[in-house]
Amino acid sequence: MNVTLRGRTEHFRTVTFDAKNNCVRLIEQRLLPHEFKIVGTKNFRATARAITDMVVRGAGAIGATAAYGLAQGALAFRGGDLKKFSAHIEVVYQTLADARPTAVDPVNAMNDVRRKMLAGKTVAERQFLALASAEEFANEDVKHCEEIGRHGAKLIRNGMNVLTHCNAGWLAFVDIGTATAPMYAAQGQGKQFHVFCDETRPRSQGASLTAWELAQQKISHQIIADNAAGHLMQRGEIDLVIVGSDRTLGRTGEVTNKIGTYTKAVLAARHQIPFYVAIPLSTIDWNLKRGFDIPIEDRDESEVLGAWGINSRGQRENLRVANPTSGARNPGFDVTPAELITGIITPAGIFKPKELWRQRHTLGFRG
Amino acid sequence: MNVTLRGRTEHFRTVTFDAKNNCVRLIEQRLLPHEFKIVGTKNFRATARAITDMVVRGAGAIGATAAYGLAQGALAFRGGDLKKFSAHIEVVYQTLADARPTAVDPVNAMNDVRRKMLAGKTVAERQFLALASAEEFANEDVKHCEEIGRHGAKLIRNGMNVLTHCNAGWLAFVDIGTATAPMYAAQGQGKQFHVFCDETRPRSQGASLTAWELAQQKISHQIIADNAAGHLMQRGEIDLVIVGSDRTLGRTGEVTNKIGTYTKAVLAARHQIPFYVAIPLSTIDWNLKRGFDIPIEDRDESEVLGAWGINSRGQRENLRVANPTSGARNPGFDVTPAELITGIITPAGIFKPKELWRQRHTLGFRG
Repeated sequence: MNVTLRGRTEHFRTVTFDAKNNCVRLIEQRLLPHEFKIVGTKNFRATARAITDMVVRGAGAIGATAAYGLAQGALAFRGGDLKKFSAHIEVVYQTLADARPTAVDPVNAMNDVRRKMLAGKTVAERQFLALASAEEFANEDVKHCEEIGRHGAKLIRNGMNVLTHCNAGWLAFVDIGTATAPMYAAQGQGKQFHVFCDETRPRSQGASLTAWELAQQKISHQIIADNAAGHLMQRGEIDLVIVGSDRTLGRTGEVTNKIGTYTKAVLAARHQIPFYVAIPLSTIDWNLKRGFDIPIEDRDESEVLGAWGINSRGQRENLRVANPTSGARNPGFDVTPAELITGIITPAGIFKPKELWRQRHTLGFRG
Repeated sequence: MNVTLRGRTEHFRTVTFDAKNNCVRLIEQRLLPHEFKIVGTKNFRATARAITDMVVRGAGAIGATAAYGLAQGALAFRGGDLKKFSAHIEVVYQTLADARPTAVDPVNAMNDVRRKMLAGKTVAERQFLALASAEEFANEDVKHCEEIGRHGAKLIRNGMNVLTHCNAGWLAFVDIGTATAPMYAAQGQGKQFHVFCDETRPRSQGASLTAWELAQQKISHQIIADNAAGHLMQRGEIDLVIVGSDRTLGRTGEVTNKIGTYTKAVLAARHQIPFYVAIPLSTIDWNLKRGFDIPIEDRDESEVLGAWGINSRGQRENLRVANPTSGARNPGFDVTPAELITGIITPAGIFKPKELWRQRHTLGFRG
């Protein structure tokens, strides 16, 4: 999406590939919203490290980064020995897979690239196919987000107030994002609306990343404390909720997303406010039979006890906010049951959560 | 309540009066939870300033501070001219009333002291009565909180997990607090339980003040992000919610409290978890006919955009957390309807919210 730097507006993707220099180029997301910087990783190990260190984060974005990383590793290979090349590719694959061991997107993306490479008969052909497939993966990610935007934009009408939680924006994908896609598409159609961004403690992705995205895109918005949405709904100031999802159960329609999503769904249901979840097909889990079995990661308590930001000297710093002799409990995600969800916005259309299973063949289920 | 300093445990009130030095002594609450310090205000103007600057905050605490401030002003008067004395008292009264113009507790407390003073026939008698009445006001505040604790402790059973929001603890009163009173009383009865403190963004009173109180009192507790309670309720990890209130409507049972309280009440109702509000009688509003008419203060956006804490050099600092080109919306309070409230814990017993009006004569209604 657009970023304005020193008065000049340019279009960026979160991840691109510089073939001339065999370099993956990433938006350094850890510096946002306070600094916008593109960094390059010069070899596949540096690309893996960028994934580990969260220079890049978000399902689609790390998937594309791993795909490019695999191509980067392939292109760095010298010589024509196919057996040695294959052994090298396995090292590259494993290094990138180990970068975020619990994430599924890098592995799915690399499996796709690796499978397509095999059509090549020589090292050179496979190298070419690796890069072409990685580019194709990234372009598909963008296309899916565009489709989500096309379907979801119909939900946004002039004058609406839309609530979103956390960041399921373009920074989490290659471009456009999922929860933000309907907003960007609606803006493109000339619609006027206002977005409330939940701060999304403890990591404040809403206040930092989503708010930054919307500001860059010149969409009217305000940040609110996670405590405030209930009150705004009660006073009729929220008309629509759109969030993303880390994992959606294809069999039940249950949605796992950033902690606090469930709370917003409960509030929206009480106030009869439509609650939508925007997802790429890759995040549908067709196996799990109930949301209760989704493991909910308890993250480090330091996230709750402190806050990151920019201090008065312009430096990034972590403050201790909480009482220093107290501990914290920090579940990272929660599960929203299907009955609280008005619809799931996918690249293939908007479905009721309970319809996913019936529509599974349209939605990419292979089984 | 107890505070442990350098290994020694002592009992403190948030506000006391040092008659020998005609000085009001206050816990400097702006330094908590990072530093515990008692400060003295040497004259009524300094006492008013301490209220304005939020050295002391919380309904009961500022009420008692204003009462002591009025006595302090009375005791500073030299001479026996009753007319001059009365004129002086009006100046003292107005100075203290202007310290927090929207708060009702200082005015109510001072009206009480001023009325009782009038029984004195000489300046000296009135000075004596002023101090005695201020002491009586503070002691009554403590007694009411004790009564809330006595009634509320019955709700806490061994092994329970209790959720609270914001700080309605002893720091907000002279001692013991309201939402915390049942916890302190239950602890006194030897019950074992665990408390989850909502962080309570944007001002984080739960993470800083309530967590500090519970840590000092050695009550098992953890801080959670405001986003986390829904998930914990869903997984059966919260058995009881107790919060305080800034204003409770005697005619409808609606409760105004810190932003986010309504959300917790909605979640508790969904999970059939008892939701109680602990209040002193002074916060019941017998006039207003519907909660929708309660003015909800929109506070400064800077509270949402940043966070206060202690930096790596041990200094208190405000960080900019949010995107610097975004604004915020910051409603300070919300209104919880009666149907979501299991009971109101008062010094006179526990009542259904709809019972308040029927029990109004027991509950201090004068009309």
